[in-house]
Amino acid sequence: MSEPEPTSPQSFLQLVETCDNFGIPASGARHILSEELASWHLSPDPTSPVLGLIRPEVLEQLKHEPTHHWSFWHHDNVARVSFTSSINTPAKRSAVMKELCERWSVEGHWAPQIGPTKWRGELYPIYRNPFGKLDAPPDSIDESSLDEDTLNYAFKMERSACALFGVVTFGVHMTVYQDSPEDHSCRIWVPKRARTKQTWPGYLDNSVAGGIPSGLGVYESLVKEAMEEASIEEDIVRKYTRAVGAVSYFYRTSAGWLQPEVEYIYDLCIPADVPLELKPLDGEVESFECLPLPEVVEKMRAGLFKANCAVVLIDFMIRHGYITPDNEPDFLEIITRLHGRFDYERW
Amino acid sequence: MSEPEPTSPQSFLQLVETCDNFGIPASGARHILSEELASWHLSPDPTSPVLGLIRPEVLEQLKHEPTHHWSFWHHDNVARVSFTSSINTPAKRSAVMKELCERWSVEGHWAPQIGPTKWRGELYPIYRNPFGKLDAPPDSIDESSLDEDTLNYAFKMERSACALFGVVTFGVHMTVYQDSPEDHSCRIWVPKRARTKQTWPGYLDNSVAGGIPSGLGVYESLVKEAMEEASIEEDIVRKYTRAVGAVSYFYRTSAGWLQPEVEYIYDLCIPADVPLELKPLDGEVESFECLPLPEVVEKMRAGLFKANCAVVLIDFMIRHGYITPDNEPDFLEIITRLHGRFDYERW
Repeated sequence: MSEPEPTSPQSFLQLVETCDNFGIPASGARHILSEELASWHLSPDPTSPVLGLIRPEVLEQLKHEPTHHWSFWHHDNVARVSFTSSINTPAKRSAVMKELCERWSVEGHWAPQIGPTKWRGELYPIYRNPFGKLDAPPDSIDESSLDEDTLNYAFKMERSACALFGVVTFGVHMTVYQDSPEDHSCRIWVPKRARTKQTWPGYLDNSVAGGIPSGLGVYESLVKEAMEEASIEEDIVRKYTRAVGAVSYFYRTSAGWLQPEVEYIYDLCIPADVPLELKPLDGEVESFECLPLPEVVEKMRAGLFKANCAVVLIDFMIRHGYITPDNEPDFLEIITRLHGRFDYERW
Repeated sequence: MSEPEPTSPQSFLQLVETCDNFGIPASGARHILSEELASWHLSPDPTSPVLGLIRPEVLEQLKHEPTHHWSFWHHDNVARVSFTSSINTPAKRSAVMKELCERWSVEGHWAPQIGPTKWRGELYPIYRNPFGKLDAPPDSIDESSLDEDTLNYAFKMERSACALFGVVTFGVHMTVYQDSPEDHSCRIWVPKRARTKQTWPGYLDNSVAGGIPSGLGVYESLVKEAMEEASIEEDIVRKYTRAVGAVSYFYRTSAGWLQPEVEYIYDLCIPADVPLELKPLDGEVESFECLPLPEVVEKMRAGLFKANCAVVLIDFMIRHGYITPDNEPDFLEIITRLHGRFDYERW
């Protein structure tokens, strides 16, 4: 049973840098990175989109895969890997990834990352352009019927393997709060993650947060997570939730895995006359508290929030006028870092 | 007396691309730009900050300036210009720029840009890091008393000359609106720019917008502009305005001048019981109308708004839940383009 230790107070920018902690150097020099990352292209063509970044040990493992599935090449002095030109449709790519991920999991490669205990059994969509149209089809669609030429969607793969391949993943985060215009007070519903969770056990989290699986819309994912994680009824979500933007940041785990993420952001301001209480439902959350904003900030600065949750709360505080250009010297640095573009085209 | 012509309806991303219309190619290849831009460094040292980008014709003109003021060099096959190592304090740099700009204006270089008819007589601050601390001192401070080593502020220069040097400038934009929670209607106060204005005559603008001169705080600039442009009393601004973020984009004018800009964004939601009407005061605005949001959107899509005002309205619509990940295919592309970092370190 692990519990995070408070740090000495951190600045908002330090909290952002804990989450957005990876990027290609401005000089483009890869040799100053701690290891040479290979670029994962969609097809054996240097102009095809870069889908992810692959560490040397994973690249070595891929070289044992069937040669009619994977191509290895160099371009601009950078190692590249891609599907072969015959693996050229969503159906074929999804099938290759399914077989590979299941076999690697069973064989115990990178057990802490995709071993059977970490296997999610949930498929994430991979897009040619992660900032483009979210057109992953519902699971009920037969992928072999898809028209490759008109799609941004490229294929889907097991969630727990995404960080092995450095691909962009997508999630939803919602801040559920109460505002008192009279005394300008704001209270935020803050869950504590179960101490049995494999990642960030015992850390504080956002009111509602979760990943977007392949084939589910952004808002539908939010509705589902709101019930599963916080016991919020669907009609309450649909009535009071507001889409308010997105954050994007490039996170590298302490073990070195790459997790570039996009989080779609929602606010749910509980009206004074609506008696809403957030409660755990699915065991991922230990408990909920409705904390005054100053207390939330104190816990954030003490490093008690999961890194990407602090970032979403900072975005909340910017949009709601608590963090301003006049009270935060790193205002622009924070805002631009919260909306990064990953620069995959430069890799 | 010019009046803009409506275009066929544009997408939100097209409107963003009209404003954020310039960037270094991902490949880093400068020769695919239409002209080779020189990088303007603070000092004759390749590691000193890049302050701006200079077009060939301006670079040629600078070569006629005193050699004890300006250095010309190359690094990584790119032309560089900087102050000489003796021009090494805010006071000295501001003095060099003041004399140069005044002389160029009188001599008629780039008359359409900084000729006497365009001269603003307003000083803009230049920072080493445009995303760093806004520490330009008030005008009452003698610059020779400043401690160069602890400042992000580098010097100040005439507003109308900023685009000749491709430096980042800063402004404030506020959306003044009325919300009716009953029928989810939103009406926005929209000014029409005077048809006598030199830039964007007759185009629609944001409720309140203006530049931040050297030595004035962000919020203080907003208070000043709210009165000058829209006759909003100071106590109304201070009571109801909320800071809500910033946008940053790299704009190149049709004549080729470079205007990377940061706009700090504010919302002023007029309470139902406050009788506020926006009215022109200083002659920059011809008239105000309070338009329903759908009509604002129609005029935006028809290209009738000044380019950077459309961008601020798009940010408003994202933060207020009108543009969402489920109804806008370019959602992430728009959000990340609205918070660009200029990548000066790559020039």
